[in-house]
Amino acid sequence: MRLKNVKGADIAIKNSEYVIKNPEEYRGKWNKVFNNLNPIHIEIGMGKGDFIIGMAKKYPSINFIGIEMYDSVIVKAVNKLEDEEISNLRLIRMDARLIEDVFEQEIDLIYLNFSDPWPKNRNAKRRLTHERFLTRYDGIFKENKVIFMKTDNIDLFAFSIESLSNFGYKLRNVTLDLHNSDFEDNVMTEYEKKFSSRGVKINRLEAYK
Amino acid sequence: MRLKNVKGADIAIKNSEYVIKNPEEYRGKWNKVFNNLNPIHIEIGMGKGDFIIGMAKKYPSINFIGIEMYDSVIVKAVNKLEDEEISNLRLIRMDARLIEDVFEQEIDLIYLNFSDPWPKNRNAKRRLTHERFLTRYDGIFKENKVIFMKTDNIDLFAFSIESLSNFGYKLRNVTLDLHNSDFEDNVMTEYEKKFSSRGVKINRLEAYK
Repeated sequence: MRLKNVKGADIAIKNSEYVIKNPEEYRGKWNKVFNNLNPIHIEIGMGKGDFIIGMAKKYPSINFIGIEMYDSVIVKAVNKLEDEEISNLRLIRMDARLIEDVFEQEIDLIYLNFSDPWPKNRNAKRRLTHERFLTRYDGIFKENKVIFMKTDNIDLFAFSIESLSNFGYKLRNVTLDLHNSDFEDNVMTEYEKKFSSRGVKINRLEAYK
Repeated sequence: MRLKNVKGADIAIKNSEYVIKNPEEYRGKWNKVFNNLNPIHIEIGMGKGDFIIGMAKKYPSINFIGIEMYDSVIVKAVNKLEDEEISNLRLIRMDARLIEDVFEQEIDLIYLNFSDPWPKNRNAKRRLTHERFLTRYDGIFKENKVIFMKTDNIDLFAFSIESLSNFGYKLRNVTLDLHNSDFEDNVMTEYEKKFSSRGVKINRLEAYK
């Protein structure tokens, strides 16, 4: 995503009740943030938030946390939430490489939607399905490890199939053309809406360990 | 593949020295057929044989066996071999469901190229990557289990990723666009030549257990 400097982004983020400013403080006790024991699903790289907001509205008995690195992106989600009251949703602005500092054995599912493919081999370790990240995720999952992934990038998809399978994940509900598959519960990201409308095929998988 | 009745197919097959007529007799001792201890690779559903013939020529220190169910198809390979002397190649006309009657702990690698996708769910068990077949393959592999697969059918590819991964295989060298990938040693099947020239994308994977 091309990043623009968004005026006042920092203030909007600071003022939003959805954004948790000191996430490390809740490590191991995110259920207290939501004040219930419902499952917690996180999206790493939530972008402008359409997916995580849509999911939170659709599944009120699951807690959702959207994670995004950039102020200029997360502020788009913050603005969308201005007049909303969604008690099962929180956002965090952070670098995903530090995810173990924020969660500990409490996440039920990770969504990776249209993650940066980092096409050059020398950047492979930055891909969110690289072994380096999968190792980090191991420590934040509560019990079963579950990752749901969508991407239009066939190289990232192929890389992820290899990486997940070699890390011990079993793959299920794989499709190379999500929008022409029989998967019915798809909540689209803003990126997905744009590109699938142009005929780009969306790949999706579920990984379980 | 649409099957035509090919006149004289049975005679041509009968007369070919490449075709092993009583394959059950060599179960557990195929190295004697080739008179060496080189690795044995088989292709299940070799069609008209372009792939297995090309591989046998390219890799003389590997023994190759092409398996095909239909007289009218295998005869095309037999005709191509009429003036060839390829000592590391044999063909078998048989139903792959009976593969355990023909091999026992002696195969190093199985190729599945453009296998019938059997699109209807009720026919899933006929797919060559269905658990039912993977179980049969377990008994014919020598030691390490290795399957190389190519297909243009995205549903069969997705099904196979799931099935192989859940059967304990690790997936490597996955690509969703083989002809634009950096894989250099590709030997094309006749089907692959035809469809990739029309812009159809070829999927490929390697599975290891």
